[in-house]
Amino acid sequence: MFIIMDVHSSEADIQRVMDRIRELGFQPHPIHGDTRLAIGITGNKDTSARVYLESLPGVLQVIPISKPYKLASRETKPENSIIDVKGVKIGGGNIVMIGGPCAVESRDQTLRITEKVAKLGAHILRGGAYKPRTSPYSFQGLGEKGLEILAEAREKTGLPVVTEVLDPATAPLVAQYADMLQIGTRNMQNFTLLKEVGKLGMPVLMKRGMAATLEETLMSAEYLLSHGTRDVVVCERGVRTFASHSRNTLDVSVIPAFKKESHLPIIVDPSHSGGKRESVIPLSLAGIGAGADGLIVDVHDDPLNALVDGPQALLPEDFKELMTVCMKVGSALNRPLSAVPKGS
Amino acid sequence: MFIIMDVHSSEADIQRVMDRIRELGFQPHPIHGDTRLAIGITGNKDTSARVYLESLPGVLQVIPISKPYKLASRETKPENSIIDVKGVKIGGGNIVMIGGPCAVESRDQTLRITEKVAKLGAHILRGGAYKPRTSPYSFQGLGEKGLEILAEAREKTGLPVVTEVLDPATAPLVAQYADMLQIGTRNMQNFTLLKEVGKLGMPVLMKRGMAATLEETLMSAEYLLSHGTRDVVVCERGVRTFASHSRNTLDVSVIPAFKKESHLPIIVDPSHSGGKRESVIPLSLAGIGAGADGLIVDVHDDPLNALVDGPQALLPEDFKELMTVCMKVGSALNRPLSAVPKGS
Amino acid sequence: MFIIMDVHSSEADIQRVMDRIRELGFQPHPIHGDTRLAIGITGNKDTSARVYLESLPGVLQVIPISKPYKLASRETKPENSIIDVKGVKIGGGNIVMIGGPCAVESRDQTLRITEKVAKLGAHILRGGAYKPRTSPYSFQGLGEKGLEILAEAREKTGLPVVTEVLDPATAPLVAQYADMLQIGTRNMQNFTLLKEVGKLGMPVLMKRGMAATLEETLMSAEYLLSHGTRDVVVCERGVRTFASHSRNTLDVSVIPAFKKESHLPIIVDPSHSGGKRESVIPLSLAGIGAGADGLIVDVHDDPLNALVDGPQALLPEDFKELMTVCMKVGSALNRPLSAVPKGS
Amino acid sequence: MFIIMDVHSSEADIQRVMDRIRELGFQPHPIHGDTRLAIGITGNKDTSARVYLESLPGVLQVIPISKPYKLASRETKPENSIIDVKGVKIGGGNIVMIGGPCAVESRDQTLRITEKVAKLGAHILRGGAYKPRTSPYSFQGLGEKGLEILAEAREKTGLPVVTEVLDPATAPLVAQYADMLQIGTRNMQNFTLLKEVGKLGMPVLMKRGMAATLEETLMSAEYLLSHGTRDVVVCERGVRTFASHSRNTLDVSVIPAFKKESHLPIIVDPSHSGGKRESVIPLSLAGIGAGADGLIVDVHDDPLNALVDGPQALLPEDFKELMTVCMKVGSALNRPLSAVPKGS
Repeated sequence: MFIIMDVHSSEADIQRVMDRIRELGFQPHPIHGDTRLAIGITGNKDTSARVYLESLPGVLQVIPISKPYKLASRETKPENSIIDVKGVKIGGGNIVMIGGPCAVESRDQTLRITEKVAKLGAHILRGGAYKPRTSPYSFQGLGEKGLEILAEAREKTGLPVVTEVLDPATAPLVAQYADMLQIGTRNMQNFTLLKEVGKLGMPVLMKRGMAATLEETLMSAEYLLSHGTRDVVVCERGVRTFASHSRNTLDVSVIPAFKKESHLPIIVDPSHSGGKRESVIPLSLAGIGAGADGLIVDVHDDPLNALVDGPQALLPEDFKELMTVCMKVGSALNRPLSAVPKGS
Repeated sequence: MFIIMDVHSSEADIQRVMDRIRELGFQPHPIHGDTRLAIGITGNKDTSARVYLESLPGVLQVIPISKPYKLASRETKPENSIIDVKGVKIGGGNIVMIGGPCAVESRDQTLRITEKVAKLGAHILRGGAYKPRTSPYSFQGLGEKGLEILAEAREKTGLPVVTEVLDPATAPLVAQYADMLQIGTRNMQNFTLLKEVGKLGMPVLMKRGMAATLEETLMSAEYLLSHGTRDVVVCERGVRTFASHSRNTLDVSVIPAFKKESHLPIIVDPSHSGGKRESVIPLSLAGIGAGADGLIVDVHDDPLNALVDGPQALLPEDFKELMTVCMKVGSALNRPLSAVPKGS
Repeated sequence: MFIIMDVHSSEADIQRVMDRIRELGFQPHPIHGDTRLAIGITGNKDTSARVYLESLPGVLQVIPISKPYKLASRETKPENSIIDVKGVKIGGGNIVMIGGPCAVESRDQTLRITEKVAKLGAHILRGGAYKPRTSPYSFQGLGEKGLEILAEAREKTGLPVVTEVLDPATAPLVAQYADMLQIGTRNMQNFTLLKEVGKLGMPVLMKRGMAATLEETLMSAEYLLSHGTRDVVVCERGVRTFASHSRNTLDVSVIPAFKKESHLPIIVDPSHSGGKRESVIPLSLAGIGAGADGLIVDVHDDPLNALVDGPQALLPEDFKELMTVCMKVGSALNRPLSAVPKGS
Repeated sequence: MFIIMDVHSSEADIQRVMDRIRELGFQPHPIHGDTRLAIGITGNKDTSARVYLESLPGVLQVIPISKPYKLASRETKPENSIIDVKGVKIGGGNIVMIGGPCAVESRDQTLRITEKVAKLGAHILRGGAYKPRTSPYSFQGLGEKGLEILAEAREKTGLPVVTEVLDPATAPLVAQYADMLQIGTRNMQNFTLLKEVGKLGMPVLMKRGMAATLEETLMSAEYLLSHGTRDVVVCERGVRTFASHSRNTLDVSVIPAFKKESHLPIIVDPSHSGGKRESVIPLSLAGIGAGADGLIVDVHDDPLNALVDGPQALLPEDFKELMTVCMKVGSALNRPLSAVPKGS
């Protein structure tokens, strides 16, 4: 840590700060500039003393140097993590495609769509059995019945399934059916949920919060990792800005920044960020171009009757086109699509 | 609802939209402008058909007119709601002051601070027994032990207590000890928690999410109201913007806008929005000036040793000054401080 | 336009609004819903009466339907515009590469870098002679001397030159030397400058403002187009958000949205949006993936000694890599690089 | 400055950085922490070497300590500046009220409104002769004719006049008529304009840009101050955020932060930030509560026919109410209204 002293701090202020640093068991290193004193601090194991030091009279600013995340940090683990979801590899240079309906609406709808998506080459199936909805009056998902349908879709296609966990109470149930658990954007800082899901030890797909900084996103991944999971994939799905031409603003800049800070894979959700079918392919390619390890995409074969987010769902033929262009662009970038699991 | 048709939509597109509107049991009202066709729709009870209609070919935009919130809406209940928390009235023109430590750190610390705060005229005590922390390695609160301490503080001061509920599992326990339940900003869209807390039927203080729109805030209040609570107070605590001179950007504009849309009271948290002791009084007065029904403020008598958010806590003498200026400004605006409950 | 009346508006309020609409020479079309009255308006040529109508008692909202931009709108001109800058075509499916130093620092530096950039296949040269700097104490550019150097670079390479115009007074001078005039992000709503530059009738590269909506961006293009220029290229260079992991947040979503609304080409500046060399190639590919018609990139062969924005400049070898991957990805997407002008 | 070295930087990297610091004529002070090396730098007069140092291999981050603004900084001048505009004092604890029409529309309209505003106790008159408009098709102001009308209003009321300067070419003309020159929000980083207006040496009211940080705002004030003006008043008028319930988000937090950093006065524009008449008084009181030195408010006596921003203009009777509540609140806070100049 560094402490920057106020230009007008007194000798007594400075002495007090030096004393307190030593009392904490650390070493102060004063550096006298032309107009200002700075004090380097060594010997501290973490930054928990920051709050204390910032409150001392004459202290202008305390600048932490250590990162608050450990397990998620690339400094701890320099090589890229490759997450294995029932044989599908996420991370490591390949591109993984996750597709399916936003919500499990019925057995027929889900089996129909997931079969098409599987035939078109998707690696993992998506589908929500528990849906977080802004309005209490909207469709909230089929619950366990939806999980059973997803399990059936997995049987039929041989592909693993990712689905959202809404709360700690239903997490164990969801874990019985799913191969990967999803934390939604509105729950990225639901810390009780993160702890409980972490304890289940399964692969987790964690969506970045709508207004989460990169550091906060990594800290939430740290919650998962420090409670038992080793396998976390982060998903950029757009942040909230003044721009109203898209539902959210897909933050592609976070992808190289995330990869610099962390060894974990990061994928992109072009459906929820853009909110419109016509922008899904452009945003998918933007994500791949920026270095994302894959995509998670809403697909529906009857979007006019979809109960949730119909306008943003790709039709199966659009998904086919998406697979084609991703393969071409991935190939141009020497990042092929991941291998499809054998049994499928 | 209104439908705006694309300038280049075909006769068949238009006919299809008209047919679909009638099939849904609504009435279409086409209005032919110079360059564009608009279609008014009547007979719809809600806006659930919006998604469907937006997907029809030739439809440029669907504009809902009805509001998605009912119970929280001023259209439903034109007069201001006054929430009663064990005799303390929130709303209705008076100003309510909620004060106490950010976190319950120990029995001694909590009783000491709450006694001071009570003597200085606060109406309600605050203090967190369960703390949502960005880092898994930070102090997470004393849990039930903290709740017992809060109950003792209530006994000693005669003032009601508000404290945060972090998850559905501990909600009933918190409800046994607290007089008002707080939903934190990171949980504003934790819908399972909203439902469970709503069912408890107690007064709720719901903090606005860091990137929540006014409509989303009202929809989360609607979750609480539609599940059993009648008494919801919303709290503006700053939103996330590009500005880094304060921890968050206190959005005072939301106060008159909220009051126009809803009959519920709204208060301001000047401590977490600013993040610095020196800005607490200016932001408090800004909130009162904008029309807030009260304040919730961190107070600590030893902020250098506070475990959570020490730099933003007011000292008891600062809280005294805050009480004084709020009383003066409130009096100038004909909005006196609320009455303190009798027993205290 | 549509007018939405307040639920509690009186008969007199409604009658007054109907009368005013007729007085303005328009036709009102009342539509009585279950709870609310809406009034469609036809016969209005523009939306200038909106402000007036919004002020009438009982009016909740006025919703304009017509777009405020005409010349920039795709409704006015459905096919893509292709801008010709001394033989280089921008728009129409190809990818154009603009490269060079951020600032013209010296004759030697500029000729050296532009020669390398030209050899590597760039289509247009960039370089600032007049630099807008946040600090009055920073290097402000070489001025006319810089323009002469740029002209010499054009002679030597055969490539056209784009350079920034800072104010109306120097615009005619810049126009004598440059082939395309750049409006900087901080000047996107400097309307006097837009008018003067528009009158010069030359191709213009207009950067989107840091907090400009899509509509405002198109309105600024409209300023240029309505004053004499036919050839406007818009440049997305990142918007300001809470995210601090990159200098600005590159808004790739604006690219498909812009192309839907307008026939003008749009390119991406990956250097100023990311602010770091290491993110230039990922953001470039993100832009191309999202559909951008080209890139404008800072290149420097001695970034440690660059006077402006050194950390974000690509080295010539990086630019070579960028050209290679853009060619590959463009080829995968059937969007080849533009042809290089003959003389070069 | 401090340099933070990458955890994985080599000995050679470190040596190179140390050498470069010495070559620049500065002194390096290495501080070896447990995991990381930091290097304090003394002897540098400014932060211009930052860019250079950040580019060196192994350097993770360079943290400047000195502030880039000098003349605007409270470190340079600890006491509050009090700006004198023809006898009206801005800053120093009093509250100044600036009122008048958004735009000068006609002689009659302007004289009528300014007379009312003056009678109600305003200190300074406002009114735009040159209007920056988002659309090229909107009313652009009366120009010099408008300036003449403003001068006449000054004669009749005895109050000084502030009006906007749109470009360098018309600045000298505006300076002949006005007592204080306004820089609009869209021109806050129009550096040529800042330089030219600074040279005129008159009091300047500079509006904060819609997405300007506090530091950028102070740097723009620094442009004015370093070119000749001594008298700069900054105006907070709302920043751009995701919130759509108000036109912009009034950032009251910037007021205490600004006052900490700078000796200059800061006022609030409640009209343009909120965009609605009904929010003007709440936002005015929020600004005063947060510590603003005054307000600038749109007033119109016929807002239905106003050519610019009618819906946000206060009626004269509203302005009277505003004066009354500001006087009461100011009095409660021991911050009375400024004295009205004698001649008026």
